[in-house]
Formats: sequence, C-alpha cells, structure tokens
Amino acid sequence: MSLITLTTDFGIKDHFVGAVKGAIYTQLPDARIVDITHQISPFNITETAYILKNSYKSFPDKSIHIIGVDSELSPENKHIALLLDNHYFICPDNGLISMIASEIKPTQIVAINIHDRVESSFPVLDVFVQVACFIARGGSLGVIGKDIDTYKKITEIQPKLNQDENQIIGSVVYIDNYGNVISNISKKLFADAGKGRPFKVKARRYEFDKIHHKYNDIINFDIEENRSHYDGNKLALFNSAGYLEIAIYRSNLDTVGGASTLLGLGYRDTITIEFIS
Amino acid sequence: MSLITLTTDFGIKDHFVGAVKGAIYTQLPDARIVDITHQISPFNITETAYILKNSYKSFPDKSIHIIGVDSELSPENKHIALLLDNHYFICPDNGLISMIASEIKPTQIVAINIHDRVESSFPVLDVFVQVACFIARGGSLGVIGKDIDTYKKITEIQPKLNQDENQIIGSVVYIDNYGNVISNISKKLFADAGKGRPFKVKARRYEFDKIHHKYNDIINFDIEENRSHYDGNKLALFNSAGYLEIAIYRSNLDTVGGASTLLGLGYRDTITIEFIS
Amino acid sequence: MSLITLTTDFGIKDHFVGAVKGAIYTQLPDARIVDITHQISPFNITETAYILKNSYKSFPDKSIHIIGVDSELSPENKHIALLLDNHYFICPDNGLISMIASEIKPTQIVAINIHDRVESSFPVLDVFVQVACFIARGGSLGVIGKDIDTYKKITEIQPKLNQDENQIIGSVVYIDNYGNVISNISKKLFADAGKGRPFKVKARRYEFDKIHHKYNDIINFDIEENRSHYDGNKLALFNSAGYLEIAIYRSNLDTVGGASTLLGLGYRDTITIEFIS
Repeated sequence: MSLITLTTDFGIKDHFVGAVKGAIYTQLPDARIVDITHQISPFNITETAYILKNSYKSFPDKSIHIIGVDSELSPENKHIALLLDNHYFICPDNGLISMIASEIKPTQIVAINIHDRVESSFPVLDVFVQVACFIARGGSLGVIGKDIDTYKKITEIQPKLNQDENQIIGSVVYIDNYGNVISNISKKLFADAGKGRPFKVKARRYEFDKIHHKYNDIINFDIEENRSHYDGNKLALFNSAGYLEIAIYRSNLDTVGGASTLLGLGYRDTITIEFIS
Repeated sequence: MSLITLTTDFGIKDHFVGAVKGAIYTQLPDARIVDITHQISPFNITETAYILKNSYKSFPDKSIHIIGVDSELSPENKHIALLLDNHYFICPDNGLISMIASEIKPTQIVAINIHDRVESSFPVLDVFVQVACFIARGGSLGVIGKDIDTYKKITEIQPKLNQDENQIIGSVVYIDNYGNVISNISKKLFADAGKGRPFKVKARRYEFDKIHHKYNDIINFDIEENRSHYDGNKLALFNSAGYLEIAIYRSNLDTVGGASTLLGLGYRDTITIEFIS
Repeated sequence: MSLITLTTDFGIKDHFVGAVKGAIYTQLPDARIVDITHQISPFNITETAYILKNSYKSFPDKSIHIIGVDSELSPENKHIALLLDNHYFICPDNGLISMIASEIKPTQIVAINIHDRVESSFPVLDVFVQVACFIARGGSLGVIGKDIDTYKKITEIQPKLNQDENQIIGSVVYIDNYGNVISNISKKLFADAGKGRPFKVKARRYEFDKIHHKYNDIINFDIEENRSHYDGNKLALFNSAGYLEIAIYRSNLDTVGGASTLLGLGYRDTITIEFIS
C-alpha cells in the first residue's frame, strides 16, 4: 500500500483535486491519498515550502509527495522527481526543494522525461500522477527520468546574522490560520548565535524579552483564575515547527483579529533578535 | 481497522492537519481518517459541540474522535479521554463534552497522564494522536490516564422554560453554510413543553405559527408551478439534527444572503416559542 | 472495495459531510470515499455539472457518485439513480444530468422509490447514502427504483452557432480558483465550426487571435529570460478540460486579481468566436 500526499494551489472547489484522486485510484485502488493542503496562495512557493517542511516528516518513510504549485513545464521550469530524506517528491524544479531541505543532500534526483512530447496545461494529472503511481508500484526513478546532480536554489528568505554577531535579521515567511506571524528564525539559529546571551525580539514597534514554548506560558495560573483576562495578549514563542512566531493569545482573525492584523505584521516584514553582550 | 475522526480549528491551509494525518498513518497504516471539520471558529467550543453532536452517531461504534479546539494543556485545561455512547473522544476538558452529551453518562473517563513532562504547543500531534493510536490498537484507557469521575460542565447555552410553562426561551447556537440560523430548542423540548398547544415562534420581529419538517413544505406544488417564486421565503423548521431552525428557502449567503443576514439573527440572539393555552 | 464520491454544496464547516461519511463507513467499512467538492455555490447546478463533467471520468469504472446539490425531494424534484458511461450517479432529477452528459445515453435510469414515506430535510444522508451502499454491495438499480426512460433536460447554457456559420456565441459557465474564466465553447465545436479558418475570440472589449494549449505558450523563452515579465498578461486557451478559457498568466485573485476581476468577465457573460472566411 502506498501513501501519496497532495500539496497544491488548486483550491477545493474546482474539479482539479477530484480528477487527480480519481486518476490515482484508477491506477492504485489501494492507495492512501492525503491532502496536505490545496489552499496555497496561487504560485507561492515560499508558502508551499513552509507547509511541506513542517509536515512531510510526519509521514511514513517512502511516502510520495506530489507538489502542484507553479508546475507548468517550460524551458525554465523542468519537472523533477527525487528521493530526499527517505521521502519521494515530485515537483517542478523552481527552487522549492532548496527551501524545503536546504541542508539535506538528496539520494537521487531525476529530470522527468516521460513527457517530452506531451503538451499539457494540467501536468499534475498528466505527468505527476503517472510518476507517483510508477514509484508506488516499485519503479525506480532512473526509468522515468535522467539523473541530474542538483536542483534550482533559492536563498532569498534565509535569515542573516550581522557581522558583529549580535543581531539576527529574519523575516515573516508565513501567516497561519490564527493570524499568527511566523518568521524564518529557527530555534537552532537562535541558540547557536545567542550562546545564552540576553536578547530582545523586535517586530515593528513591539519588543519581547522572552521567547516562550507554548501559548499559555504567559498566564500566571497561580494568581489569576480567569484565563480570559489574558486573551489578546501578545507573545513571542518558538512554535511547534521550531520557528520564532509572534502570536496573540487565543486570537481570532474573523473577529478581533490576530497578530498579523493587530500588530501590522505582513509577509516579508522584518523581525530581528538583538543580543545584549 | 480503526476509524479516527478529526474536528479542529486548524483550518485547511496550514501544515497542522497534514502533520496529524501523517503521524497517524505512520503508526496505523490501515487507519481510516475522516475530517469532520477543520473550520471551527478559533477556540469556539459551542460550534464544536454542535457539529460533533450531530455527526458522531453516524460513525461506527468504537470510532475514535480527536477534538483539537482550545486544546493547549494548562492547570485549568486538562486532557481527557473517554468512552461515551460507545464512542471514544480525546479532547481538552473545557466543557465541550457536557455540551455534546449532557444526558449520557460516560462509561469511563480518564485524565491523560502520558505527557506529564511534555511541553507542547501542538498537543493534538504530540498527545492526542498517541492516545488515539493506542486505543485503536486495543489499549485500555486506564493505561494512558487516571480514572476520574466527571468532566467540566458548561450549561450556559441550555434553553429555558419559563415558570408559567408557556414560553421556551432559546438562543442561536450555530449559523450554517446556507446562512440558516439554528437554535438550541430541540423537537423533544418543544413537544414536552408544548403538549400540543398552538404556538408562535418569535425571532426578532418575525413570527412563525408553523414549524415545518423540510424546506419545501412551504411550497404549494398544486397551484403554483414555478418553484422559484418561493425562493427567499422564510420559514421555521426542525432541521435534520432535530433543532428549531429559521431558514430562507434556497438562500445563498454569497449573493442575496441567508436568514442570518436577511433577518439580522446572529450567534446567541434569542429565539422564543410562546404557547397559547 | 467500492469508490464513492461526494459532490455537494454543504461547505466543509457544518456537520453534514462528516455525518454522510460516518454513515457510509458504518455500512461499508472498506469504502473509499473521495470528496470531489463541497464548495458548490448553494443550489447551483451549472457549477455542479461543470465540475463533475471534468472529474468523473478520471475515476474507475463503476464508481458511485453522490450529488447533493438542490436535492430536497418534491413533486418537481424526484430522486434518480442511473448508470451512465459505466459510472453510477445518485442525484436529484433537476436537469443536472443533461448538463453532465448530454451526448451519452444512460444504460439505465430509475426513479428512487425506497423512500416514498420518508420526510427528510437531509436526503443525502437518509436516501442517497442508502442507495449508494446498496449499489456498492452489488445491488441492482431495479430494486431501489422504478425504471424510467429519461431525465429532466436543461439546455440553456449550450453555445450557439449563428446561421451564417461564422460566429460561435458562447457564455461563461465557470470561474476557477485562479479567477480564470471558462466558457462553454469546446475545442471540438471550435474545430467543427471553424474548419481551420482564421478567427478572433472576443470577450467584452478584449480580442484574441490565438488560442493556446498551455498557459506559458505566451512566453518567448528565447529572447526574454525573466519569466515574471509576462505575469499579468492575458491569453485565450483551451484548458485541460477542453473548453475555451480566458486567463491571466500567473494570476492571484487575492492580490492583483484574475481574469474575472481584471477583465470584468462574470458568470453568464458572452464570449464569441468570429471566423473570417
């Protein structure tokens, strides 16, 4: 039995997702198909990378991940399949993979060539599904493509440590369902660069001198019984994915708003950590 | 084979749902995972209760229901697992269960204690999935928690019968996909309190002297061929879940609006039934 | 093992979808259930037809498609089940089927009569699921309904060829997730009517003299390295479903907009092809 995941910008209204699943089940009646998401903002590979990076490792080894974001074939956007960290990825070679796994060397990468004469405006259905089913049946990557050494690199959203090594300059890479604002500053980078020094997190005109590990760390349950007094308080924490996040405790984007709207923090805005030596 | 359902406020864009499903399949390759919903308004346990109450009974006995709404562990918000009405529920002890099944005594309730030293901002992944997989493999509740007698009770949204027993005072507990407005007044309460007396349903300045059993009951198919003449008519009915609902026939929230917008009825607004003796 | 698909206007927040899946799994623990979509605009059978027409063929033969859009039973809206193109459809007889498969004669159609005494405001759960599970277990249509000859026909959205046979007058039938505007003019109609003549596609004040086969056909990769220069360019193409579509290259409805908003093309607006002889 194979496990195939789908990560796309197709949305969940159109026929695209249904057509893809039907095609997989036609070839593999026993497949497990899991939607990671179909709500990627159209063509946004930064979002795609954030979501995949934080979900693919939960899946069993040898899972097959189809990524249908900005996947139309062109001379500058080849289709690739790769085995990386014991997971298969089928995707366009548009820089995405470098954002998912910059530090992991793929075991094998191939440029897919089963479709050299196929003109398709729906490559996920016409190409990626075929490749996924081929791999699921035990086929080897070498048969559906030509070995290549590397994939396209995109590095624009890496956080930077300044020359004096007392400031990490990061940026907002994702806004989640609660309006929480997630940066590209990892717990590891913070620990390596900070070496235990005191610090301040700065995001626009807001400062935080603690980074929590869960949302309700900001509540003093001893002296205050009514938890709701803390609703709406802002905090910095390392989220479950290991990244620095600016959050509003128990926020609701549809009513009072979340950190993104209340603090005015948007995609690509700067978030810094200053270390005090 | 186990059936595990998910009811959360995670939304369907972030990596949370994918990570949870991957973790379940890693432990239980044969699991059936069903999304009840991930669209709960953040932290809203009233909505959660309405949706679960009206769906869990459709599932096979011994299904395992993971509820990831307001589930961060705190001194005031323990994690519990229970067997109730022959279904397993894994959830925070935040009053939710009392709203799902106020009249059913659980067979067993445990305070989950497998995580006494786990600090997690993603307890659904780090705790609830482990408990669900343990139960699915046939494990008993007593192993993952300590038996407790009861769960937190919330009763604020119960409808009331006045002292003269000629008026039921209920309130809006849910607005559905069509903008229909659903109260907490059940068909049973109506029958028990009304004892067959004539009545008026009142919602803001609107009155109804019939409660229908399906939407097109308001149409006289004998004398009017064009069904669309009735589009936009308002009606009261007992919906398929057994609750008094104020609806607009064939409404569309995205265009002309639904009962919530057209009649100005919002969450927690009062709906009454007056009996005429 | 049976494959059952769901296409509804239920949305994904309410309890409806969960209840339906629970009921199917209770009867058929091994079923594969696939959501085609639950985001149909309420009661919109044109959208339903477009989505189903372009997805059902991807599924294996003998798949069972439940359609829960405008499905309340009434004297003018019977429930039918049919075998068409080797797929089973369970749906209201509201014209939908004529829009899905106008050119294919069903193998068998029955008017469902298992529920002649059931009053239900949730027929998908109370009737369609029962019929689907019955078919999935190998039951024959004749047992759950009475053979009928035909279904309700709706033809309003067919494109027309003018008398001089130099103009196809079509209309917009769907707007997709990217804001692309899809007409009811098929590649086949274009080829049959055009017979290779030069042509102009007209949509409001915009004209196109080429119809492409994939989105990035408009890019000259030889002379322009920066693909993003083409973002926002408009084009006409035959989409993967075989219909004439007006698109904006790499559009995003949430930010800059798509063809529907940027060109002012809405549902039912006219799109024509004029042939030059």
